[in-house]
Amino acid sequence: MLTFLRPSIRAMSGYTPGEQPRAGSIIKLNTNENPYPPSPRVFDAIREVLTGDRLRKYPDPLGTHFRKVAGRVLDVDPDGILMGNGSDDLLTILTRAFVPEGGMILSPTPSYLLYRTLAELQGARFDTVPYSSDWSIPAVWPAVDASLTFLANPNSPSGTSIHQTDIEHLAEQLRGPLIVDEAYADFAEENSLALARGGRVIVTRTLSKSYSLAGMRFGFAVATPALIAQLIKVKDSYNCDVLSLAAAAAALEDQEHMRGNRARILATRARLERELTRLGFTVTPSQANFVWARRSDRPVKAIFEELKRRNILVRYMVYERYGDGLRVSVGTDAEIDQLLIELAAIV
Amino acid sequence: MLTFLRPSIRAMSGYTPGEQPRAGSIIKLNTNENPYPPSPRVFDAIREVLTGDRLRKYPDPLGTHFRKVAGRVLDVDPDGILMGNGSDDLLTILTRAFVPEGGMILSPTPSYLLYRTLAELQGARFDTVPYSSDWSIPAVWPAVDASLTFLANPNSPSGTSIHQTDIEHLAEQLRGPLIVDEAYADFAEENSLALARGGRVIVTRTLSKSYSLAGMRFGFAVATPALIAQLIKVKDSYNCDVLSLAAAAAALEDQEHMRGNRARILATRARLERELTRLGFTVTPSQANFVWARRSDRPVKAIFEELKRRNILVRYMVYERYGDGLRVSVGTDAEIDQLLIELAAIV
Repeated sequence: MLTFLRPSIRAMSGYTPGEQPRAGSIIKLNTNENPYPPSPRVFDAIREVLTGDRLRKYPDPLGTHFRKVAGRVLDVDPDGILMGNGSDDLLTILTRAFVPEGGMILSPTPSYLLYRTLAELQGARFDTVPYSSDWSIPAVWPAVDASLTFLANPNSPSGTSIHQTDIEHLAEQLRGPLIVDEAYADFAEENSLALARGGRVIVTRTLSKSYSLAGMRFGFAVATPALIAQLIKVKDSYNCDVLSLAAAAAALEDQEHMRGNRARILATRARLERELTRLGFTVTPSQANFVWARRSDRPVKAIFEELKRRNILVRYMVYERYGDGLRVSVGTDAEIDQLLIELAAIV
Repeated sequence: MLTFLRPSIRAMSGYTPGEQPRAGSIIKLNTNENPYPPSPRVFDAIREVLTGDRLRKYPDPLGTHFRKVAGRVLDVDPDGILMGNGSDDLLTILTRAFVPEGGMILSPTPSYLLYRTLAELQGARFDTVPYSSDWSIPAVWPAVDASLTFLANPNSPSGTSIHQTDIEHLAEQLRGPLIVDEAYADFAEENSLALARGGRVIVTRTLSKSYSLAGMRFGFAVATPALIAQLIKVKDSYNCDVLSLAAAAAALEDQEHMRGNRARILATRARLERELTRLGFTVTPSQANFVWARRSDRPVKAIFEELKRRNILVRYMVYERYGDGLRVSVGTDAEIDQLLIELAAIV
């Protein structure tokens, strides 16, 4: 049966998600989860639909209630919203909608490693345009013919953001769609919703980070209603379950809870940036819920490993031409205190 | 942005799922949901993981606990199990793994309409081999070169099953993989798990029907561990959420609950078949949780519409060369009583 697999599938190595240890006593700062629990309204909403009748019946394939809530909260047309089983589901839907076999997916580099995987799965080529040393993008974009261009904004691992005027300028040059992957936008100063409303870009969002719902798998895309109507054909009919739909709507309804957690995370982020710099790291100013910390004096892999031995998990990443670094999620103040104590002993 | 869509996406009409009315007083016999609630253990399992810490963290990307439980219950190697966000997710994963753009997906007809949609999404051709009038398949299969062949067994809308020896004979002739879509297998006398264990076919299952969890979106595939390792590369890393993983494992653990509901459904199914026949329908003996009812004296569309006016929803389907029919899910005894009363007044 293996011989029947498409050659591109057999050849690829697959995306490796960050470690998800099941054990209890680890300080987990490696996959940018929110350190604070979701809104109490999420639990109420889940309990309300946790009935035999709701579980045994199919969910609403269009997520009408969720779209209405999201439309109101974000000031977009509900018909311009597409729900997804996590934003990875949406990135897959967009890839399948726009990229033919042999097509081209492009993104700036270093960025989210999944974009390459999506290209491989689709049998498409993958190419990158390097960020400049100040994490800006070229004013004259050198690869305008891609079937689809992904821009993670804020970007991972750098945590940096491209300004809206530059994004608009990029979209104008492209002969294909620009997807602005806004997984971390709630932690940033700007976002591209206005460009999405105007049909210039497609925005994707996740509830995994700012809404503390990584375990629930929920994301959404924002585009014009005409485009969303086409993308609905590409998604699985019932891609979101009845509990996650209820949880997602409740989470978006409670903006106060999200903003409170956001404020705490931004305060801790500022302290983390300051203290890591004091410990000799080169820290890129972050617009996300993580920081990207490098060292000019030596590779950081040994630091990553020593932290792991001390039960603190951060993400070690190495990029061709950019060297290596530690991507550290902004945890609670107590978690970051512990990290800084251990780091001070290590470096 | 619309002009950037792949032409095959723009051209397709999309899969139309059965109606999911949100209103309360409708007797819903149109999408083969289980009329009985899931196991009480499902609710316990969901409540146990319904904590801030579990919701804010990513789920286990491999579903280790679920695979262990499913492996034990079904007597298969846990590494030979792939979890999916509903069995539609698995059918998509299999399509992307095996079917190149321009490839060919094949299934007997009439059958599950989604198979054509999956071909269109992949930019592949779709072809069918007609079932014979007794719902058997040709001993000499006329289209052995498909990239992938789907066999819904039991089949929808007919509710009929192909014997294991005939499936094995079909698999031997094919020059591509045979997917046995066993959404309804728990209501049938036979299944293809033994063939899947032996690497002859790939089996897909859903928890939507026999385990009463359509609202939770969970399915799984069974194949050889070597093949599942390849398919894991194709799925989204976190395709199943923490609540559905817990619910699915708990549902499989409670075989007694599932078998009790199965027995009730089979008893009601026998009565429904008998009574529909008495009312002048031609009813195909069913191995699933629905029956396929046709009439030789007239089209059934008017009956479908009159039932709908009377707040009973069944599925009206029409297939080229096979005419039309009503696919009626086996509901509770009270629901079927009401259906039969209304039908007696209509026909």
